[in-house]
Amino acid sequence: MIIFSERINGMYRDVRQAINEKDKQIVQNLVREQVAGGADVIDVNLGPTKGDAVENFVWLAQTVREVADKPISLDSAKPDLLVQAVPRVKQALPDARLVINSSTAAAASMAKLIPLAAQHSAGIIGLTMDQEGVPGSVEKRVECGATFFMAAMEAGIAPEDVYLDPIILPLNVAPKQPWNVLEAIRQLASVSDPPPHFIIGLSNVSQKCLMNRLINRTYLVMCLVAGLDAAIMDAADKDLVEAAISAEVLLEKHLYSDDYLKAWRMQKGI
Amino acid sequence: MIIFSERINGMYRDVRQAINEKDKQIVQNLVREQVAGGADVIDVNLGPTKGDAVENFVWLAQTVREVADKPISLDSAKPDLLVQAVPRVKQALPDARLVINSSTAAAASMAKLIPLAAQHSAGIIGLTMDQEGVPGSVEKRVECGATFFMAAMEAGIAPEDVYLDPIILPLNVAPKQPWNVLEAIRQLASVSDPPPHFIIGLSNVSQKCLMNRLINRTYLVMCLVAGLDAAIMDAADKDLVEAAISAEVLLEKHLYSDDYLKAWRMQKGI
Repeated sequence: MIIFSERINGMYRDVRQAINEKDKQIVQNLVREQVAGGADVIDVNLGPTKGDAVENFVWLAQTVREVADKPISLDSAKPDLLVQAVPRVKQALPDARLVINSSTAAAASMAKLIPLAAQHSAGIIGLTMDQEGVPGSVEKRVECGATFFMAAMEAGIAPEDVYLDPIILPLNVAPKQPWNVLEAIRQLASVSDPPPHFIIGLSNVSQKCLMNRLINRTYLVMCLVAGLDAAIMDAADKDLVEAAISAEVLLEKHLYSDDYLKAWRMQKGI
Repeated sequence: MIIFSERINGMYRDVRQAINEKDKQIVQNLVREQVAGGADVIDVNLGPTKGDAVENFVWLAQTVREVADKPISLDSAKPDLLVQAVPRVKQALPDARLVINSSTAAAASMAKLIPLAAQHSAGIIGLTMDQEGVPGSVEKRVECGATFFMAAMEAGIAPEDVYLDPIILPLNVAPKQPWNVLEAIRQLASVSDPPPHFIIGLSNVSQKCLMNRLINRTYLVMCLVAGLDAAIMDAADKDLVEAAISAEVLLEKHLYSDDYLKAWRMQKGI
């Protein structure tokens, strides 16, 4: 699976402070920890930080890249900010692969962000929602996911650069949604061959839940069975990563060997 | 889910010795531990023990029932032994619910064991294999499962007394089988409404594997998504049970509450 690190996010107090004070050390220590845990892509989200958001994205991306030769996922719910930030980050880091996180399937959002991804050969995450908000139903998720995927294909983006995110909501407020998300992944996985990637922001499922780490690792295994192959998650959570790799071994995505976790780490060079 | 305790099995040296020496204490301590962990049914298997097998089954079942008011699953690959043992155990313990573990879908096995289950109002586990052995394919598993289920229905056994076991093989020798078992469960789950139960002998998947407990709990979660609702497993493995209950909360089989594990235990009175 493709592990997007969730940790470089200004919603975390330490990262917020690091961005505000331009303290590279804090960020780079976290990035090293995430990479050592298995992160393939570093998602960066400013959260409620001060100063110019575009400059903050450039600083954060550069800070990450100094210690990790990994793609960077620029994470914002503001399309206009991404439109400004992506070219600036690309200019500062011409060798870096970028992922745009995220567009919705609303026409206005896609019109801004899909051409941006095509122009910069970036990956793009498409949320299965439109201007009406997060769907309660499987059907609407599938409809939005298919709409987004077709629009991305029409713009010339390769299927492997598209990540559909069926949007998982917290279990404690929306108990039917974990199942609906599993079912949406299963249905969308048959839409195209090769299919796009499927990703979730894993920690959302356990937001404000007492047993959040247990819920996260259990739900990740469930999603991998349905066809998920990427997640924005805490790569430093060893139990979580080990559960995911074990599920992938059981799904024959990795060869079994007695110490398959070690084999997986060696293959990644971590 | 319905947790069948795997622990009272003569393949374990302590249990073998207890059966051979008729040492109740060892067995009863294990049973108490399994019940405290969440076991709903106590599976008893003699393994390679000495003496009269029917007498051993009667002694073992009585020993279990002295400390646990739970159904007992009589586990043997020998149909003729089950044909002798079931009436004797039922006579010794008229109030005990029994489960016959197991018949195959071969005509000779079904002809002996399905009427036995009907006669004693016992549950019965049907392995999805016939005289040709364990199938490699999904299709053959589904065929055997459907054959067994139909034969049980014709004999007047209620769907909820039938457990189909798609037979999980060790990951390290048969790496495709975990997926095939998942797919067989998914397909068989739509055969009937109400459906039978689906069960596996969980520890088989990780037999002689280095990370057996991690593999067990990961695979159990995967199977629960596919439609499994029972397993023969170590109920004293806390991580395993907690993973299973978490998966069931995420599938809405239990109501979410902040401490849903505690709620589940309270409901079971453990």
